[in-house]
Amino acid sequence: MNLFYYPGACSLADHIALIETGLSYRLTSIRHDKMTEDGRDFLSINPKGYIPTLELEDGTVLTENQTILNYIAERSGKLLPKDGIVRWRALEALAFMSSEIHSRYQPFFRDFPEPEKERAREKLAQAFAILAGQMGEKRFLVSDEMTIADCYLFWVLMVAPRSGVELPGALGGFLAHMRTLPSVTRALAEEGLG
Amino acid sequence: MNLFYYPGACSLADHIALIETGLSYRLTSIRHDKMTEDGRDFLSINPKGYIPTLELEDGTVLTENQTILNYIAERSGKLLPKDGIVRWRALEALAFMSSEIHSRYQPFFRDFPEPEKERAREKLAQAFAILAGQMGEKRFLVSDEMTIADCYLFWVLMVAPRSGVELPGALGGFLAHMRTLPSVTRALAEEGLG
Ligand SMILES: N[C@@H](CCC(=O)N[C@@H](CS)C(=O)NCC(=O)O)C(=O)O
Ligand SMILES: N[C@@H](CCC(=O)N[C@@H](CS)C(=O)NCC(=O)O)C(=O)O
Repeated sequence: MNLFYYPGACSLADHIALIETGLSYRLTSIRHDKMTEDGRDFLSINPKGYIPTLELEDGTVLTENQTILNYIAERSGKLLPKDGIVRWRALEALAFMSSEIHSRYQPFFRDFPEPEKERAREKLAQAFAILAGQMGEKRFLVSDEMTIADCYLFWVLMVAPRSGVELPGALGGFLAHMRTLPSVTRALAEEGLG
Repeated sequence: MNLFYYPGACSLADHIALIETGLSYRLTSIRHDKMTEDGRDFLSINPKGYIPTLELEDGTVLTENQTILNYIAERSGKLLPKDGIVRWRALEALAFMSSEIHSRYQPFFRDFPEPEKERAREKLAQAFAILAGQMGEKRFLVSDEMTIADCYLFWVLMVAPRSGVELPGALGGFLAHMRTLPSVTRALAEEGLG
């Protein structure tokens, strides 16, 4: 499998999941002119033009972070139970982080006017409080075992400082814990962020 | 199962899916003061305060539209194949509509300043073009059989006129076709939108 990525972007979640599950993968970065590092036109691979994008062995191209994470879990049989409440809470958390957090980072990533940033900060603080409540004293978000939700949560929290919103203690602790995991240090190193 | 909803809001997708799959359900609307129509404090049921929210027979509460639709499919064995590319394309489309379309309706639903609306319109037009390309000549978005992606797509397109963005022909045709289905007319009638 071939994961298209930008260093430190949300594709980091999928990169960590690939390492954790032991699936074999290649990484291909995208240049800002939307050419891949191996010289292909990225828009002809994914017309949406964004990462993460996963190219399978048979040429099938999957997009959308939640879907790629779910696929990695399904392929490997790891990081997401086949049924039961942990499965649904992990999928729910992915949908929540995508729709209620990631989308609210745009004002900071793209430097939108201050009122938009302020509105986003308010929503982000609420969303972080909900995640902190869900985490409680557990080692990971949904249970004491890692799920794909934790891979995405790590990225979501790693870039949170750019919004200026302070993280609740439980989430700060999770972030520090994740940084010590071999899969996470390896993923960061492979993206040149070691 | 008990689906919390506002008439005509995004919970319509789940409502249609419940009817299509033949699962038994109740509907409970939320008042604007966040009390349920049967007199409960909605925030104590879902602290996120939004719909769709699905309460299961054992009291478990599920949130996030994509997750609820996925759960309805899993419970019923309908509207989402267990594996294969149609499954992944349906889940991918749900993630895409949630992150790239639904989130961009906010400027219109909440009357944000015109520059924000204009930025959203541009992204919405791109997203609709991608969906129209994916639909092609098929009866539904992902295949000739309905999936949960179509339930959400119906709602996404039904409210699109509020953004002022014109729908490509393939999507206008889909919307008209969906309106003729018994599940859709029944869901609209049950929400008082007949
Ligand atoms: N809906 C997509 C959004 C992905 C996304 O926002 N990717 C960002 C990086 S974190 C990106 O590629 N931005 C560059 C661009 O849009 O040109 C998903 O959930 O995967
Ligand atoms: N992330 C949620 C968002 C749901 C959402 O935006 N619901 C809207 C109706 S379409 C709502 O309840 N808005 C009222 C509110 O936020 O107070 C999901 O994907 O289900």
